[in-house]
Amino acid sequence: MPRIVMKFGGTSMAGIERIRSVAARVMREAAAGNQVLVVVSAMAGETDRLVQLCREASALHDHKEFDVVVASGEQVTAGLLAMTLQGMGATARSFLGWQLVRASGTHGNARIQTIESAMLDEALSGGTIAVIPGFQGVSEDGRVATLGRGGSDTSAVAIATGVKADRCDIYTDVDGVYTTDPRIVPRATKLAQISFEEMLELAGGGAKVLQTRSVALAMRKGMPLRVLSAFEDVSGTEIVAEMGAHMERNSIAGIAADRNEARITLTGIADRPGAVAAVLAPIAEVGISVDMIVHAATAGEGASDLTFTVPRASLTVARSAIERERDAIGYAALLTDDTVAKVSIVGVGIRSNPSLAAKMFETLAERRINLLAVSSSEIKVSALIAEGELDLAVRALHTAFGLDAPTVAAGAAA
Amino acid sequence: MPRIVMKFGGTSMAGIERIRSVAARVMREAAAGNQVLVVVSAMAGETDRLVQLCREASALHDHKEFDVVVASGEQVTAGLLAMTLQGMGATARSFLGWQLVRASGTHGNARIQTIESAMLDEALSGGTIAVIPGFQGVSEDGRVATLGRGGSDTSAVAIATGVKADRCDIYTDVDGVYTTDPRIVPRATKLAQISFEEMLELAGGGAKVLQTRSVALAMRKGMPLRVLSAFEDVSGTEIVAEMGAHMERNSIAGIAADRNEARITLTGIADRPGAVAAVLAPIAEVGISVDMIVHAATAGEGASDLTFTVPRASLTVARSAIERERDAIGYAALLTDDTVAKVSIVGVGIRSNPSLAAKMFETLAERRINLLAVSSSEIKVSALIAEGELDLAVRALHTAFGLDAPTVAAGAAA
Repeated sequence: MPRIVMKFGGTSMAGIERIRSVAARVMREAAAGNQVLVVVSAMAGETDRLVQLCREASALHDHKEFDVVVASGEQVTAGLLAMTLQGMGATARSFLGWQLVRASGTHGNARIQTIESAMLDEALSGGTIAVIPGFQGVSEDGRVATLGRGGSDTSAVAIATGVKADRCDIYTDVDGVYTTDPRIVPRATKLAQISFEEMLELAGGGAKVLQTRSVALAMRKGMPLRVLSAFEDVSGTEIVAEMGAHMERNSIAGIAADRNEARITLTGIADRPGAVAAVLAPIAEVGISVDMIVHAATAGEGASDLTFTVPRASLTVARSAIERERDAIGYAALLTDDTVAKVSIVGVGIRSNPSLAAKMFETLAERRINLLAVSSSEIKVSALIAEGELDLAVRALHTAFGLDAPTVAAGAAA
Repeated sequence: MPRIVMKFGGTSMAGIERIRSVAARVMREAAAGNQVLVVVSAMAGETDRLVQLCREASALHDHKEFDVVVASGEQVTAGLLAMTLQGMGATARSFLGWQLVRASGTHGNARIQTIESAMLDEALSGGTIAVIPGFQGVSEDGRVATLGRGGSDTSAVAIATGVKADRCDIYTDVDGVYTTDPRIVPRATKLAQISFEEMLELAGGGAKVLQTRSVALAMRKGMPLRVLSAFEDVSGTEIVAEMGAHMERNSIAGIAADRNEARITLTGIADRPGAVAAVLAPIAEVGISVDMIVHAATAGEGASDLTFTVPRASLTVARSAIERERDAIGYAALLTDDTVAKVSIVGVGIRSNPSLAAKMFETLAERRINLLAVSSSEIKVSALIAEGELDLAVRALHTAFGLDAPTVAAGAAA
């Protein structure tokens, strides 16, 4: 009998009416012959309310006590869903985090280590629907530990792995993963299938359907995921290790758009070994990740320019970190620009087909879009451009790579 | 070092401002050189909100899931109070019911069996203030179990017993136990001390300062209690096994007034063995407790009247239960009256001084108050009278037994 994990977010659990509709979906999966385990979030808004109470109680709150307070939100929805399922005639029960989810690491940002799967096995094999609060477990010192905001997706994947589920279905307020952000390209299309790697690269490019951590965990454990709408009864997107051979899919899965970029350029850096490291070290020290890096020595001049990007919110901190080291680094000028954006093509086809990158640059050139920087990974090619040209770039690439839907598609963020 | 348990109800925990004032009181007790353990209720209104959600989720809710949902209220306040104490510079931590309070019996109405006191001993001895959610524990099957509504007073006493506390202080929205209801007698006075037995008899007479179950448990375990105001910094009432020899107290502790009475009279019952039992058995079968019973055979007539009282809300059910058995019982008429009330004098002095009962009846006679029934226990004498005469009777007895304050006292229910 197939065993599945279904995960529902806060919007799906907001109020008894919605919980009832979640219960109906769960009942349908059970009726279809599946063993079902459900992971739930707190009601939308509840976690924020609890976090606010903690802030008011004490500005410097103890993470262990914070966990005690905020974990209560999912405890409530887990009990309510189990009751609702019982009311519909199912055998159901809730299992709280402290009963079977062992976590380690920092309170407030713990990671799931193991699941006490024997209890769950027994329940699931006996036809009981198990309901587990997401976002929490029990720490090594026997206390409630939460996994950090948005951790319920990761909870669901970890629990699915722990109980050797056949797949993990994530129900959200969008109905799947799109070829790009439908707010930019109304003709974006929903992908029937996408690989874990592509999903990770798309997420890195600004798409927020699933927590990156949950996708990375699913990829490592080989746990097939599906993204589905909690509100509409339509097919979603499968996220898998290997694309089905039968899948006739474009070699490019999608176009990612990311406005969260700021550019820093240092001019007149001495051409000596370690010059680039001298710039990036102080930025790493203040905990900022650098994304795209462009450095080319200007032949024969003895000095060169270095350009890189940081998250937009970190620009001021990054700038100060460099200015403090000005003497050690040695540069002529420090220029910054926070009106840049990154457009990327993502697809496993890039690995085997170098002409796809060329096609990307040609397409952007045709639209007279200037490239400020370029970077690439095995399955992604990114270009840094002016933010004002982002929408045009995304639309042009979406069309060029044959991703436009034949008719205008309704939908949400890719 | 003295070890004390402090218990705060929902009104005291309603919102961060109030929790801060609770924390200040706790800090004061700790600063005075006590080891302190705090038992807390959920924020006022929160348990009702959670119970309502359970009702909406499923009319027939599973008590185990009900417990998962409603126990979250105290979990939140326990975490918030621990944080607030930490914010004020104390070492404090919460211990959840599942970590150390073993309960047994029905979910939703469980009873505390044992406390894992080793963890608490270590914390308290090390100067940590322990905060425990009231109203909950862990059942034999390892699940959250709640103790039934209002169970936090009983939780506090059971936990105080488990950790061998020197006393248990119950902070409420009244500032102590009064000689009678100050709404009836503005000159009612707060008692500095009262015995467990007197407190139980006063509670039975309608006073609701503490849960009867918590007083009975404290009496059985010899745990001294205090009732104190959570809002005003005034001395409260001590509830003890033996009244202090130094206490110069009136032999009567207080006057109890109870409007929750209804009278049933059966006329023309045959004078035969088992006649009274034949009447009371069908009432016991429907789960109604009978309070005062008056039965006197009328000499030589072969028939007599039987009068007894039941809680007012049970009158209709009790009446039907008797009418169904009319043939088996054999009576001339069934008369009921729900405009009666019970006034009682309560005091350990009654045991050794029979003239106190006589004084009570004289006082009522002087005011021309008719006695409908009389009953007495070792430390209480009760009279059933017309409800319209209750306030007059309470005032007269309060004065006659020398309980009136020299000046008008402000306060709340006795």
